[in-house]
Amino acid sequence: MSASIKRIGVLTSGGDAPGMNAAIRSVVRTCAYHKIECMGIYRGFQGMIEGDILEMGPRAVKNIVNKGGTVLKSARSKDFMNPEGRQRAYQNLKKYEIDALVIIGGDGSFTGGLVFNNEFGFPIMGIPGTIDNDIFGTKYTLGYDTALNTVVEAIDKIRDTANSHNRLFFVEVMGRDAGHIALNAGIGAGAEEILIPEEDLGLERLLESLKKSKASGKTSSIVVVSEGDKIGKNVFELKDYVEENLPEYEVRVSVLGHIQRGGSPSCFDRVLASRLGVKAVESLLEGKTNFMVGIQGDKIELTPLEQAVKGKSKIDEELLRVSDIMST
Amino acid sequence: MSASIKRIGVLTSGGDAPGMNAAIRSVVRTCAYHKIECMGIYRGFQGMIEGDILEMGPRAVKNIVNKGGTVLKSARSKDFMNPEGRQRAYQNLKKYEIDALVIIGGDGSFTGGLVFNNEFGFPIMGIPGTIDNDIFGTKYTLGYDTALNTVVEAIDKIRDTANSHNRLFFVEVMGRDAGHIALNAGIGAGAEEILIPEEDLGLERLLESLKKSKASGKTSSIVVVSEGDKIGKNVFELKDYVEENLPEYEVRVSVLGHIQRGGSPSCFDRVLASRLGVKAVESLLEGKTNFMVGIQGDKIELTPLEQAVKGKSKIDEELLRVSDIMST
Amino acid sequence: MSASIKRIGVLTSGGDAPGMNAAIRSVVRTCAYHKIECMGIYRGFQGMIEGDILEMGPRAVKNIVNKGGTVLKSARSKDFMNPEGRQRAYQNLKKYEIDALVIIGGDGSFTGGLVFNNEFGFPIMGIPGTIDNDIFGTKYTLGYDTALNTVVEAIDKIRDTANSHNRLFFVEVMGRDAGHIALNAGIGAGAEEILIPEEDLGLERLLESLKKSKASGKTSSIVVVSEGDKIGKNVFELKDYVEENLPEYEVRVSVLGHIQRGGSPSCFDRVLASRLGVKAVESLLEGKTNFMVGIQGDKIELTPLEQAVKGKSKIDEELLRVSDIMST
Amino acid sequence: MSASIKRIGVLTSGGDAPGMNAAIRSVVRTCAYHKIECMGIYRGFQGMIEGDILEMGPRAVKNIVNKGGTVLKSARSKDFMNPEGRQRAYQNLKKYEIDALVIIGGDGSFTGGLVFNNEFGFPIMGIPGTIDNDIFGTKYTLGYDTALNTVVEAIDKIRDTANSHNRLFFVEVMGRDAGHIALNAGIGAGAEEILIPEEDLGLERLLESLKKSKASGKTSSIVVVSEGDKIGKNVFELKDYVEENLPEYEVRVSVLGHIQRGGSPSCFDRVLASRLGVKAVESLLEGKTNFMVGIQGDKIELTPLEQAVKGKSKIDEELLRVSDIMST
Repeated sequence: MSASIKRIGVLTSGGDAPGMNAAIRSVVRTCAYHKIECMGIYRGFQGMIEGDILEMGPRAVKNIVNKGGTVLKSARSKDFMNPEGRQRAYQNLKKYEIDALVIIGGDGSFTGGLVFNNEFGFPIMGIPGTIDNDIFGTKYTLGYDTALNTVVEAIDKIRDTANSHNRLFFVEVMGRDAGHIALNAGIGAGAEEILIPEEDLGLERLLESLKKSKASGKTSSIVVVSEGDKIGKNVFELKDYVEENLPEYEVRVSVLGHIQRGGSPSCFDRVLASRLGVKAVESLLEGKTNFMVGIQGDKIELTPLEQAVKGKSKIDEELLRVSDIMST
Repeated sequence: MSASIKRIGVLTSGGDAPGMNAAIRSVVRTCAYHKIECMGIYRGFQGMIEGDILEMGPRAVKNIVNKGGTVLKSARSKDFMNPEGRQRAYQNLKKYEIDALVIIGGDGSFTGGLVFNNEFGFPIMGIPGTIDNDIFGTKYTLGYDTALNTVVEAIDKIRDTANSHNRLFFVEVMGRDAGHIALNAGIGAGAEEILIPEEDLGLERLLESLKKSKASGKTSSIVVVSEGDKIGKNVFELKDYVEENLPEYEVRVSVLGHIQRGGSPSCFDRVLASRLGVKAVESLLEGKTNFMVGIQGDKIELTPLEQAVKGKSKIDEELLRVSDIMST
Repeated sequence: MSASIKRIGVLTSGGDAPGMNAAIRSVVRTCAYHKIECMGIYRGFQGMIEGDILEMGPRAVKNIVNKGGTVLKSARSKDFMNPEGRQRAYQNLKKYEIDALVIIGGDGSFTGGLVFNNEFGFPIMGIPGTIDNDIFGTKYTLGYDTALNTVVEAIDKIRDTANSHNRLFFVEVMGRDAGHIALNAGIGAGAEEILIPEEDLGLERLLESLKKSKASGKTSSIVVVSEGDKIGKNVFELKDYVEENLPEYEVRVSVLGHIQRGGSPSCFDRVLASRLGVKAVESLLEGKTNFMVGIQGDKIELTPLEQAVKGKSKIDEELLRVSDIMST
Repeated sequence: MSASIKRIGVLTSGGDAPGMNAAIRSVVRTCAYHKIECMGIYRGFQGMIEGDILEMGPRAVKNIVNKGGTVLKSARSKDFMNPEGRQRAYQNLKKYEIDALVIIGGDGSFTGGLVFNNEFGFPIMGIPGTIDNDIFGTKYTLGYDTALNTVVEAIDKIRDTANSHNRLFFVEVMGRDAGHIALNAGIGAGAEEILIPEEDLGLERLLESLKKSKASGKTSSIVVVSEGDKIGKNVFELKDYVEENLPEYEVRVSVLGHIQRGGSPSCFDRVLASRLGVKAVESLLEGKTNFMVGIQGDKIELTPLEQAVKGKSKIDEELLRVSDIMST
């Protein structure tokens, strides 16, 4: 154990994700377990700059393991982008006698943390929290499993209508740069086709596939589309294109939107958050810094933050193939 | 009991709604209970025209009481709008020896039924099935209670993000002509303001209300907007307007869309569907025609179809006041 | 408005029920709307005796409309059963300058309130909160609709196994004295038979019904049993009895238990709670006392508390018949 | 590809689990993809003996990916335990020209399959389907992830009451021989203590822990107990023991029971089922037999069925520690 760390600060930053509260709770209780103090920093880096900081004991985090969002709130901080802001943030950490920082967030938050560490040598540890699952060094980010369940439940409902009316639905899901949600939820929801940023299906093949689907006797279909799909058309343009080219289809569009970020975390996300929080605190106590904790295989492992930020979590080729077979 | 009715046909028409399957099941089993036959007519009036008709015994409807959508499927029928189509439909009813018709649907479906009855004197009975709750003669339409739960659950999720980021969300819900969903789900979800077709809040009062809300210490807010709100702006225009006039607000939009139509029906909708189905069949057997079954107070009552179609279910003034008080 | 009421106290008492928090919120905000103060009394009458009382402003109840349980906590109070306890409670109300009391709870809580009013002439108003729906003067108690949904969702899951294995399940639901949950959830879940306290089906008819059901081709069945069913056997004895007499059945038992009390309230319960809270506060302000607010038909009405306590909400005969027809 | 396999049979056996339908769908569609035929065998080995076998094309499995239970039904087969039964089963496979068998089930089902293969050299492949997660060779069995979510959602509801009344709840979850559900759902639900078959906490330590918990300011607690916990008392005996020794606690018991087996599968289970089905069929086509497909790390791998049956999936020591830290 690092003799020098007596008090750890924890913050959430970037878009909120289910499981963030469970991670906060884990950080707080792991600190208590190791008899060190824990300070909650509100509204991410902005609260660090403004000194919006409160002590959190183990009872302060009761009954939040199952809550969506983040009790520490999150915010984007422009001030943290310039040196004066970061200087003030550093002063606050000194003032509150915080010795190390756990940052729960995504790419952007980690990059901010690295810059901060670079300037002040302040020990930091990242916990990946984002529904997009687009961070290198962890098979699952916090919130991703919950978001998948939210998406398949939503599409299950849409399918009721699709089936009742023999319609085709384009369902847009989150994922500007990564198709993980679309691919997994698409398989889970029994989608006909799945359009993701990583692979350009092409408009031709989409039409081909829909034609084949109709011919095979399917009376209704769901196509899941990632926000950032590579085909180069948004979901409303796709609808128009398909209706023009396949007049036998009546098409509807549904943009799932912000419901994907919220909700009570799944058991998987709660357990993962608990494990990651333990590892984050204990790694700091062991004197480590500039790592992200993540799950690889079934183990919690460390990845250098720099790699986590630069690397890219790849789409699993096997899943593309499974998706293809399932829409037979 | 009417000696002349030996076989009843049942169909679902218009937009699907949770509880339609429970109503079909109820019609089928009530027929079996009274030892008459029941025929399922697929795809609404269109299937009636095309002769897409199958016998349904009590076992044919097992395990559907809890399913969204409609196993009989639904469709809009242009052919039924002209006399030849209706003539063919009538021939098919004769051919299949169907003596009376239960129509599960909304306004449009009932109007079609009335025209049909007018031309051929064919006995019909309506069951109100639509999530919009906009039918006169019933306090609740099938699917409405389920849709309310779907909407509040969705907004609960959105609120996780709203709270975490101190944001304002405009959430658009279904209801082109009626604000029932918006008003009830808005109260249920703790919305700051609710915009409905029946009442023009006015842009000024909306701004006023949001300003007051900010001043009162609220850090996040939800405004629920009916598709057909009277303020004359769609939900994206509202966002722009508010951001322009209240720069202190960061606004997000969520259009809930088709998830509102689907899902497993609530217990209320299942029980209501069961009661309405019994009453519909037994009313036909008593020789009644051209009525809609509905719930008034706690009783299942008949309303002349013509009234059901022409009348309008009104927004409850008490609820507007409750909504106002709740956002204190 | 009653000039004399400047501060209202609110408490929850007896078993918790979903919607209690929404009712607390409504009471608090209605007070704020009318510019009077509101004090939250913790742990029911016990907290009143111990002076566990805190002011609640409108922001104190944010984000609880969708939470199960009660933020004011509930407790059974033996001390309130003797005069000294009630005297201390009264002293505390005086000390905190509370002028009237809103009691959210069931029969027992209302009886306690009446005794208290009798002794001290203290103005009280009841809001019916209990999942059992066994209170006279309101068609729905708070929490009942949510409990029904919880029960049908649970039975939907059990039915997956019943269907997969061709089994018979006895499912015990709450309701020691009232069969409302069993009857409505039984219809909603498509139960074969429903055993309730109000009607003695008789073991013979149960066997008869199960035999007929098997003969009619049903491969799996659910029997919903109220805790206090009149047949005089508990759910495990029923299992043994049926297996002895109908060896063709493999029987399983599931006691749903406490999950029925919890969970996020349905939209219906949230709206009802909001309406009841408004009416409770405004009735007190109008100088009324010793009433319970409730819903009758579609209106919020007052019932003398004495009647609410003595009367009995009856089982709807129509529903018994619907249940019978549905299991055809 | 094995030239000799032209037709594959698929069956579900043992207790049903969410995801079994998704696995059936995957097996059927993977067969179609490879242009071989697929036969559904109803009621497990019993249907194999009785010749309850039907062809399944890709459309036969539409809209089941999200359904709990198993459309092929499951059963325990005594007849399959003696050679004559198995002989008849083999004859039926020959009669229906089935060349290989996919068995979806648990330990017992795989053992049956191995005996069968041993006697007739019939190619078999196992897919692990059971909520207990107690099969060696796969990190997750089908249905386990869904069951975890069902359990944490149920405990979330129970916690509403526990919190409202400051009570202690013992919640019994499934797992006669394996504590995976208890351990993971216990962490996910924020349980105070978790009693599992693999570790004897001891009554002393349980009391100690509850005492400490009370002292630390916790007002309510949940203890999750595996059916087969090693402490040697069932959940009702535990309640009595604790109430006797810690009179400051008011204890309640909830046995979650059969709801844990049902429900719509989680996205994770649906995707896993899809992947396992593909691998099972393709492994048979590659000429492999007597394996179980499973997930190890993030990859789908084969494990000899004999190992899968004999081995034991171990409790993760790290999780025990995390659980301990979380209840700080």
